[in-house]
Amino acid sequence: MNLSDIGEFGFINRFKHIFDNLLKNGEYGIGDDCAVIPINSEENLIVTTDMLTEDIHFLRNDISAYELGYKSAAVNISDIAAMGGVPVCSFLSVAIPVDCDVEYLDNFMQGFYEISKKYNMALLGGDTTKSAKYLTINVTVIGKCKRGKEKLRSMAKEGDIICTTNYLGDSAGGLQIILNNLKDSKNDSIKYLLECHHKPEPRIPEGQFLAKYECVHAMMDISDGIASDLNHILEQSTYIDAIVSLNDIPISCALRDIGAKYNLDIVNLATCGGEDYELLFTVANNEEFLQLKENFFATFKKPLFIIGKIIKSESLTGEIHWFDNGTKINYNKNGFNHFKR
Amino acid sequence: MNLSDIGEFGFINRFKHIFDNLLKNGEYGIGDDCAVIPINSEENLIVTTDMLTEDIHFLRNDISAYELGYKSAAVNISDIAAMGGVPVCSFLSVAIPVDCDVEYLDNFMQGFYEISKKYNMALLGGDTTKSAKYLTINVTVIGKCKRGKEKLRSMAKEGDIICTTNYLGDSAGGLQIILNNLKDSKNDSIKYLLECHHKPEPRIPEGQFLAKYECVHAMMDISDGIASDLNHILEQSTYIDAIVSLNDIPISCALRDIGAKYNLDIVNLATCGGEDYELLFTVANNEEFLQLKENFFATFKKPLFIIGKIIKSESLTGEIHWFDNGTKINYNKNGFNHFKR
Repeated sequence: MNLSDIGEFGFINRFKHIFDNLLKNGEYGIGDDCAVIPINSEENLIVTTDMLTEDIHFLRNDISAYELGYKSAAVNISDIAAMGGVPVCSFLSVAIPVDCDVEYLDNFMQGFYEISKKYNMALLGGDTTKSAKYLTINVTVIGKCKRGKEKLRSMAKEGDIICTTNYLGDSAGGLQIILNNLKDSKNDSIKYLLECHHKPEPRIPEGQFLAKYECVHAMMDISDGIASDLNHILEQSTYIDAIVSLNDIPISCALRDIGAKYNLDIVNLATCGGEDYELLFTVANNEEFLQLKENFFATFKKPLFIIGKIIKSESLTGEIHWFDNGTKINYNKNGFNHFKR
Repeated sequence: MNLSDIGEFGFINRFKHIFDNLLKNGEYGIGDDCAVIPINSEENLIVTTDMLTEDIHFLRNDISAYELGYKSAAVNISDIAAMGGVPVCSFLSVAIPVDCDVEYLDNFMQGFYEISKKYNMALLGGDTTKSAKYLTINVTVIGKCKRGKEKLRSMAKEGDIICTTNYLGDSAGGLQIILNNLKDSKNDSIKYLLECHHKPEPRIPEGQFLAKYECVHAMMDISDGIASDLNHILEQSTYIDAIVSLNDIPISCALRDIGAKYNLDIVNLATCGGEDYELLFTVANNEEFLQLKENFFATFKKPLFIIGKIIKSESLTGEIHWFDNGTKINYNKNGFNHFKR
């Protein structure tokens, strides 16, 4: 059987139940943005790891070494943000092909350092090894949360409003620009979308802000696109479905601009493109959302966006009901999946 | 500049001092088997990570998926043993090429599970991704030590005796059997050496035993061969050199047997072959060593071996003085280095 037949989550489900027997008191593992490990009466450790492989996650000619170093840490820090935590330290493994010279690696480390410094994250270890051909990077980030205050994917409830911290699809738009050779340094929209793709900013302050609110229920970061990621909230929470209207998906002017110019399916990019690294979260009700939105704007000078609503479901697994102009549609999208490409 | 010009440690030295500014209270990072992170008044977390890449660390046709899963965890757990700690949980990232089917991955996870169960180590997370061609595995293991009881590389002192927990070179002997096509399922020595190479056993109970003794000073695990690894103790400790007699290197009957039969340089395998995953440690003096050895034998039914002595040095970096039959020799060996191959 090939992995493309069952996908990443099908594979994980083949062994998860066996390993669950080894969980110790209070440990929470596979199934959320981070694992949770109790360490003292005030705090829990939260831990995440991500692997980036050449020609799958990045093309070495299309992203600078500096940006790749930055992004390798950013995608992990984003998982810490998704729990409402702060990063503490990181571990970096790199498999290095012979055509990667020391100057390339210096620039990579400079990018990794810039974001480490920004989030006060120490680099405490790692591994460097030779690679037969491709550059492969693995980063593990350990962070901290106030004990019991982690925002989990399993916390969504019937009646919740589904929200995001920003527009969606900008990173996927940047990837389209690369794949279709549309680079143009004089076009501000193109520059902006490329920056979103190459140098995503983890939402640590936003995550910490949202984690303080009891009315914020489930939270996660958007790495594969909401068509995939929102399903994880539905799977982990119990007896809920989601209603999402494609007309409500927040899409930036830059993506609309480039989408119109080059005939891109921007709604598809915004729902299935992935690598947004924005936060997807649910809020108890409209009244609390309005207050939250006001406070969020006062702090961050940017809005929050509503993309849908959580409803009751008869099934345990949950599904997304997609609407377009008020009509329910069959929008059978699954987000980004390496193994199906 | 190519990485082979400066090696792994030359590369690390290019950025370590910049990142050291980000260390917080009590954190100890790059330079030992594990990083140390204080978490409460009784314990410190210890964290290690290792990456295994196909065609560099292993040949997919020469190690079973089950053994590869076992070994991927074992080499990390060995770093935990080297600090005198116990493993708590692991994180596993795998970049999977299309010709790795689900059955292969099931067997890999079975091997990973067997060793996880043996050491009561939960699997709390990870990442799976597609790889363009090669199988790459990264494991991060988090363990615990009694606070302040970690055995560090920097703790060796003038006058210490240098010891190991077992014979050296057996894993390297197994690799020679593979590389020279000497496999023979009827030969017990060959079977034993292959097992040492494919299924190394981390020395967790031995490490915990040794960590209880104040007279045990520096400790680390032997992953690259003592010719390289002992240098790390000399570099991290201050103003010491080491004297090692090649005649004292403990070599198993199996390795002697196969070495004689196939004309292998077994002393070279034992000093530079690497992947022993035995513990290398220093003990305050001969009297305490004899008592330790007796207690160790009473517990584990196996001996400890003396391979040399720590002496005073005028230089900060330290060096190994090699002797053969009482004569000082120029034995300019550096252990295993991927980047020089």
